[in-house]
Amino acid sequence: MGKLKTAHGTLKTPFFMPIATKGAVKNLAAEDIRELRSGILLSNTYHLYLTPGMEVMKKAGGLHKFMDWKGAILTDSGGFQVFSLSKIRKIMPGGVEFRSHLDGSKHYLTPKKVLEIQKIIGSDIAMVLDVCPPSTASMEEIEAAVKLTTIWAKKAKIVNCKLKIENLFGIVQGGIYKDLRQKSLNDLIKLNFDGYAVGGLAVGESNSEMYKVLDYLAPQMPKEKPRYLMGVGTPENIVEAVKRGMDMFDCVIPTREARHGRLYVNLPQAPSFVRRGENLANNNLPLRRGGGRRPVGLKFYQTINITNAKFKTDFSPINQTNLKQYSKAYLHHLFKTGEPLAMRLATMNNLEFYLRLMEEIRSDIKQGKL
Amino acid sequence: MGKLKTAHGTLKTPFFMPIATKGAVKNLAAEDIRELRSGILLSNTYHLYLTPGMEVMKKAGGLHKFMDWKGAILTDSGGFQVFSLSKIRKIMPGGVEFRSHLDGSKHYLTPKKVLEIQKIIGSDIAMVLDVCPPSTASMEEIEAAVKLTTIWAKKAKIVNCKLKIENLFGIVQGGIYKDLRQKSLNDLIKLNFDGYAVGGLAVGESNSEMYKVLDYLAPQMPKEKPRYLMGVGTPENIVEAVKRGMDMFDCVIPTREARHGRLYVNLPQAPSFVRRGENLANNNLPLRRGGGRRPVGLKFYQTINITNAKFKTDFSPINQTNLKQYSKAYLHHLFKTGEPLAMRLATMNNLEFYLRLMEEIRSDIKQGKL
Repeated sequence: MGKLKTAHGTLKTPFFMPIATKGAVKNLAAEDIRELRSGILLSNTYHLYLTPGMEVMKKAGGLHKFMDWKGAILTDSGGFQVFSLSKIRKIMPGGVEFRSHLDGSKHYLTPKKVLEIQKIIGSDIAMVLDVCPPSTASMEEIEAAVKLTTIWAKKAKIVNCKLKIENLFGIVQGGIYKDLRQKSLNDLIKLNFDGYAVGGLAVGESNSEMYKVLDYLAPQMPKEKPRYLMGVGTPENIVEAVKRGMDMFDCVIPTREARHGRLYVNLPQAPSFVRRGENLANNNLPLRRGGGRRPVGLKFYQTINITNAKFKTDFSPINQTNLKQYSKAYLHHLFKTGEPLAMRLATMNNLEFYLRLMEEIRSDIKQGKL
Repeated sequence: MGKLKTAHGTLKTPFFMPIATKGAVKNLAAEDIRELRSGILLSNTYHLYLTPGMEVMKKAGGLHKFMDWKGAILTDSGGFQVFSLSKIRKIMPGGVEFRSHLDGSKHYLTPKKVLEIQKIIGSDIAMVLDVCPPSTASMEEIEAAVKLTTIWAKKAKIVNCKLKIENLFGIVQGGIYKDLRQKSLNDLIKLNFDGYAVGGLAVGESNSEMYKVLDYLAPQMPKEKPRYLMGVGTPENIVEAVKRGMDMFDCVIPTREARHGRLYVNLPQAPSFVRRGENLANNNLPLRRGGGRRPVGLKFYQTINITNAKFKTDFSPINQTNLKQYSKAYLHHLFKTGEPLAMRLATMNNLEFYLRLMEEIRSDIKQGKL
C-alpha cells in the first residue's frame, strides 16, 4: 500500500475515484462524497472548459470552492472526451481542433492549454493531453497516437515547470500491442512524471486482453510512482488490476448502474456454488445480469435490480452501512414511482460498495492477503 | 401561537408542511427534512393506497418506518386526488368509485376505508374523506358536495371511535358561498373533530375571494382546535391566512418552483420602491415573474430564476443559512448542465425559505407584531 500526497490530503493507494464530470457526482452533493469517505474525486477538463467555462471557473476560485469539495481532485485532460464525444475533430501536431458536442462551436486544445485549464480548475492531479484512438483503430493509427502522445507529454512536462501543478501524470497508450505499450511507457518514464496512467483500455477489448497488457506493463512501471488505470472498471477488474500493481481507478459503473436501479450488494457468505476458501478473485464465474453472483477479492457480492418485483416486499436494509435505515422495498417503491431520491440512494449504495471494497483491498494488502 | 400534540412530537403553530406525496419529498431524503427542522410532513392516502399499496405499507410497519421519518405525518384523505387526478369517478352515497390514474384499475373509497388506510400508514393527523367539486362547479353542485362531506364526516367520526387515530380533522367545503361554508363548518363542529380544515380554496378563485372566505369563517372556528388551510399557498397567502387565524398549511409551490429553477431568496432590506415601516404584508405589489419583489410579513424577499444568464457569474451564496457553501453561479451551472443535484439544492433552498418564514411568523406572533 502506498501514499499519494496532494495539497488536499494524502491518499492511500489503491483507491477509486467517484466521477464528478461536470463538477458534481450525478445525484450527489460534495458532502455526500465526504460522508462516503472518499478523499478524492475525478472531474473533466473537456466538460468544465465548455461549461461553465474558464472565466467562471477563474472567478469561482477553482473547482474545490465552486462545488464545496475539500478533498483532492484529479482531472482528465479532455483527450478521451475530444475523441469520444466530439464527432468532428482534427488532430494536428500542435493539438486537436474539435467542435463542441453541445453547440458545435469550434475549439482548439493543446498540451499547454489543457494544463492551463487544469491549473485554473485547481486540480491536485492533472493529466497530459493524449491521443485516444478508437478501439477499432489499426496498429498504424495506434502507433501514430503513441508518438503524438509522447510529443505532447514532453510539451506538457515543459509547460508544468512554470505552471507547477502538484502532480502531473503521463498517459501510456498503445492499445493491445506490447511493443507500442512498452515504447510509450519507456518514453514517458524518461520524462519523469509524478505518476503514470494506462489509457486506451476498457474500450471494448476483452478482460483477458486488458489483464495481459497489465501483466507486462505494470512490472516496468516505476515502483515509487502511482499507477492509474483509467476508466476501469468492474469490481473484478479492479481486484485483478490491483494484483498486477495498479493503484488508482475511476469508472462510471457504480454511478451509472445506480441510475438504472442496479445495486451492488455484499453477500454475508459465499453463494452455494462457490467453494469456501477458494481464491475467489481468480474465479471467472459468468456475469449473469439480474442476480448474477460474482465473487471478488476475499468478499462476496451480488448485483441486483431493485426494480424487480421481488423487492416490492423485501424489507431487509439496502445495505448494512450507510443506508441501513432504508429497506429495499422503499428503494423499489422510489424507483417505481419515479422519485428522484431513488437515484441518489442507489448511487450512495454503489459508491459505498466500491469505496469499501477499496478499503478492504488496502486492508488485505496490509495483511499480506493480496 | 398554539401547539398540536402528536405521538411524533409537539408542533408549534402556525406551521407549514413539506409535501411527500408518495412517501418522499421530491428530491429530498427524510434526513434533509430533519435538517430543515420541520416537525411534520404531509403525505397522501390516494397515492400510497395505489403505490406501494396497503399490503406493503402494513408489512413496512407504516410510513414513518418506510421512509425513515421520525416527525409527525399528516395524510390527506385522497378526496382531492380522486376528484382531480382520476378522470373517471362516480360519487355514491356510501363513497366514491374511481379508476386509478396510473393503470385504470377500479377502486372504491369510503369514509371508513380512507381512515383504515391512514391507520395503516400511521398518520398522526388523518383527514376525513370529502367531496371536492371543481372550481367551475355550480352552487347546487357545491351544496350537494357539502351535504355529502358532512355525512361522510359523521361516518368517519364513528369509525374513529374504534380506530383511534390520534388526530382526526374535518374538512369544511362550500366554495366561495358564505351560507354553504358556514353550514359546513357548523355541522362539522357538532361532530367535535380534533381540528378543522378549510378545503376547496386555492383552486382558481382570486386571493381576495379566498381571504373573504377566511374573514367570516375563521372567527367561527373553535378557538382551541387547530385550523388547517389546505393547499395554500404563496408566502403572502400564508401571512394573510395566519392574520385571519389559520394555523396549518401545505403547498407544492416551494418544491415545484424549485424544480423549475425558481428560488425564494430573502432580501437584506426593503426594495427601493417600498417605504420602510410600511405594513408590508398588506401591500399588494403585482407579482412580476423573473425578479418580482414581493414583501411579506415583516420581511422582504424576491423570487429569482437561477437559470437566468445573470447568475452565471453571481458568486454570492444561494442563501445565508443551509446553502451558504454554494454560490448561485454553481447552482446555475448545475441547472444548465442538467445535474440532478440542481433540483435538490433548489428544493432545500425553497423549503428553508418557507420553514424559516413560519418560524419568523411564530416569533412575530409571540412578540405581538402579528
